[in-house]
Amino acid sequence: MNMKLFFKNLFLILIIMTSLPTMAQQSLFGGQQIISPEINSDNTVTFRFFAPNADTVKVTGDFLPTVKMKMQWGTFDAPGNALLSKDDQGIWSYTSEVLSSELYNYAFIVDGLNTTDPNNPFLVRDVASVMNIFIIGGGLADNYKVNDIPHGTVAKRWYDSPGLEMDRRLTVYTPPGYESGKEKYPVLYLLHGAGGDEEAWMTLGRTAQIMDNLIAQGKAKPMIVVMPNGNVIQDAAPGEGHEGFYKPQFMVPKTMDGTYEANFKDIINFIESNYRIKADKANRAIAGLSMGGFHSLHISRYYPKMFDYVGLFSAAILPNQNVSNPVYEDIDGTLKKQMENGYELYWIGMGKTDFLYNGCVEYRAKLDKMGMKYTYRESEGGHIWRNWRIYLSEFTPLLFK
Amino acid sequence: MNMKLFFKNLFLILIIMTSLPTMAQQSLFGGQQIISPEINSDNTVTFRFFAPNADTVKVTGDFLPTVKMKMQWGTFDAPGNALLSKDDQGIWSYTSEVLSSELYNYAFIVDGLNTTDPNNPFLVRDVASVMNIFIIGGGLADNYKVNDIPHGTVAKRWYDSPGLEMDRRLTVYTPPGYESGKEKYPVLYLLHGAGGDEEAWMTLGRTAQIMDNLIAQGKAKPMIVVMPNGNVIQDAAPGEGHEGFYKPQFMVPKTMDGTYEANFKDIINFIESNYRIKADKANRAIAGLSMGGFHSLHISRYYPKMFDYVGLFSAAILPNQNVSNPVYEDIDGTLKKQMENGYELYWIGMGKTDFLYNGCVEYRAKLDKMGMKYTYRESEGGHIWRNWRIYLSEFTPLLFK
Repeated sequence: MNMKLFFKNLFLILIIMTSLPTMAQQSLFGGQQIISPEINSDNTVTFRFFAPNADTVKVTGDFLPTVKMKMQWGTFDAPGNALLSKDDQGIWSYTSEVLSSELYNYAFIVDGLNTTDPNNPFLVRDVASVMNIFIIGGGLADNYKVNDIPHGTVAKRWYDSPGLEMDRRLTVYTPPGYESGKEKYPVLYLLHGAGGDEEAWMTLGRTAQIMDNLIAQGKAKPMIVVMPNGNVIQDAAPGEGHEGFYKPQFMVPKTMDGTYEANFKDIINFIESNYRIKADKANRAIAGLSMGGFHSLHISRYYPKMFDYVGLFSAAILPNQNVSNPVYEDIDGTLKKQMENGYELYWIGMGKTDFLYNGCVEYRAKLDKMGMKYTYRESEGGHIWRNWRIYLSEFTPLLFK
Repeated sequence: MNMKLFFKNLFLILIIMTSLPTMAQQSLFGGQQIISPEINSDNTVTFRFFAPNADTVKVTGDFLPTVKMKMQWGTFDAPGNALLSKDDQGIWSYTSEVLSSELYNYAFIVDGLNTTDPNNPFLVRDVASVMNIFIIGGGLADNYKVNDIPHGTVAKRWYDSPGLEMDRRLTVYTPPGYESGKEKYPVLYLLHGAGGDEEAWMTLGRTAQIMDNLIAQGKAKPMIVVMPNGNVIQDAAPGEGHEGFYKPQFMVPKTMDGTYEANFKDIINFIESNYRIKADKANRAIAGLSMGGFHSLHISRYYPKMFDYVGLFSAAILPNQNVSNPVYEDIDGTLKKQMENGYELYWIGMGKTDFLYNGCVEYRAKLDKMGMKYTYRESEGGHIWRNWRIYLSEFTPLLFK
């Protein structure tokens, strides 16, 4: 071909093309060509921020010791912060202590204003907050990484909910080999907490990575994991539904009034008529965190022949006393029925400093009194994603044995 | 049930639960309880930022008139910025001009430092930059919204590439009804540009929303859209593959050396053996932006009996003169073969101010000389996602007629 028809100076073009996003970055993001965070070989982490004119730059995040914060109703553990120091190039930096294996989040505080790290595009949203993340490997967080192993598929699908009268979005993880095989699989329904949605277990919970890794290691059976949206007034996560972009709220109306539980059958029906699943009690599990633990408790006893496996992760065990809904009637009776129908595992996980700890103690006392068997796992820490990733990693290997 | 077993003061619990994320926001993100951006009824947009101690707060983004920026190799259009004004509460604000229907991006500049909007969790990543986005409806961007219509499924899947000797990730859009039906569908292979990956067309390109809307309107035929990763050294997008989290680069090695084109058959084979598709030339389309336009040009002539529909969106029409690869041999001969084999549509889109404009003029002159028919669409503006969403919206209705 006649090369003259094309650009004569490839080098110039490459410069232009390389400069383009740099320019875009410069105009929008200061064009920082530094590395942050840098995970050092000893598992300390160096954070860097370019701000030649700032007076103070701090980093805050869950890798730092917490500090006590006083609120009207008591003291609370809040993330600590650390001061960075500035070099003569205007680059601020701070190197952490040696960190144990975990997925951490952080942000910077520049002259009192919080900002994400412009050198780290890896972010997760928690309700309305966006935080940078990084992973320290070499331990439990290796299962939160994408490793060079077979991977399942993650699909965002819409199901028809006749009960809620709308099409609604959910996330479905299918294990490696599902699409190309003929085998039938068990199903775990995995529910989010207040302020969450069908994205939360994937992004904050690293569910796809945990399942890929546990399945590859032979620790968990290949299973389908269904992550629905528990906010019945939403068709989808904020920004993913027909309401468009709006500021996500922690307290979404109608989340704990029985509507979700009463219509959960729509989700099961959708999954069981659209996937190659084993449609029996022995092959269904339900688990959830916080509000999702509340939902799992109530759904599993409201449909007392449905699930052989139940997981309550830091569950918000409280009835909504302002609501009368058939779902919350005769709780003792339906729990008894659930017990009589039999189940393989009723798993309760709770952090020692969780603000919902006492409710869990009382619920366990109630189960003890009824003679309803459960497995109890008490962990360090409180009401945080760190625990829910750990609970998921420990719960799923116990399923469908 | 004995309510005494549960929390006695629901109200207190709700306060605690409501305060939790607020605290997390406060410690990490300043707990701003303001709304930004606010799209006003007249399609002006108000931006707000809480920074009582800042000296200046500006907003920058593609909703503002561009400014000329001088670089070594010439002047360039860069996003402009506008100064916000502060009220006595320390809240800075700015209201834009009336904006036409579009998906816009923006960021704030606080005392010279760029930061995203802490009140808007809707962000997109472009290479290593993260930007806030908002949508003005009432025109073409209505097709970029999630509307209350049937929705397709978006799946992140991994395919085996024998040629590249790895499992690689791709994004597959299947149209509404695909999973529950038996029909076979045509396929559009949709390729990203330099610095992009299998995420780009979904996030920056709003492909799922565009396809859902065009299909619901009867403008586009239901089709499968496959969005692969054109960076052959990656198994997946940055952060989604086994390399973990690292700063994405614009220039990824081996992207324009023929390796991708030579192994594209692996992707077609995967799709055609894993999806219900119509496996013939009349039902295959390939299109791409910038580098993806280059790839589409070369893949479509390298496999000259494969595609009846080709789309070059702001294509980077340049051979890599440093590389000798069979893919780039006999370009004239293979183009001629492609022409003789026949095709339905060879669609070229280019922006008037695109820095690749001249290359397109020369390529069109070459096609004219050969007598190779094409459809040419010249748009306003340059090498920007705004054009690529428009081209996708105009190209897909022409497919598979």
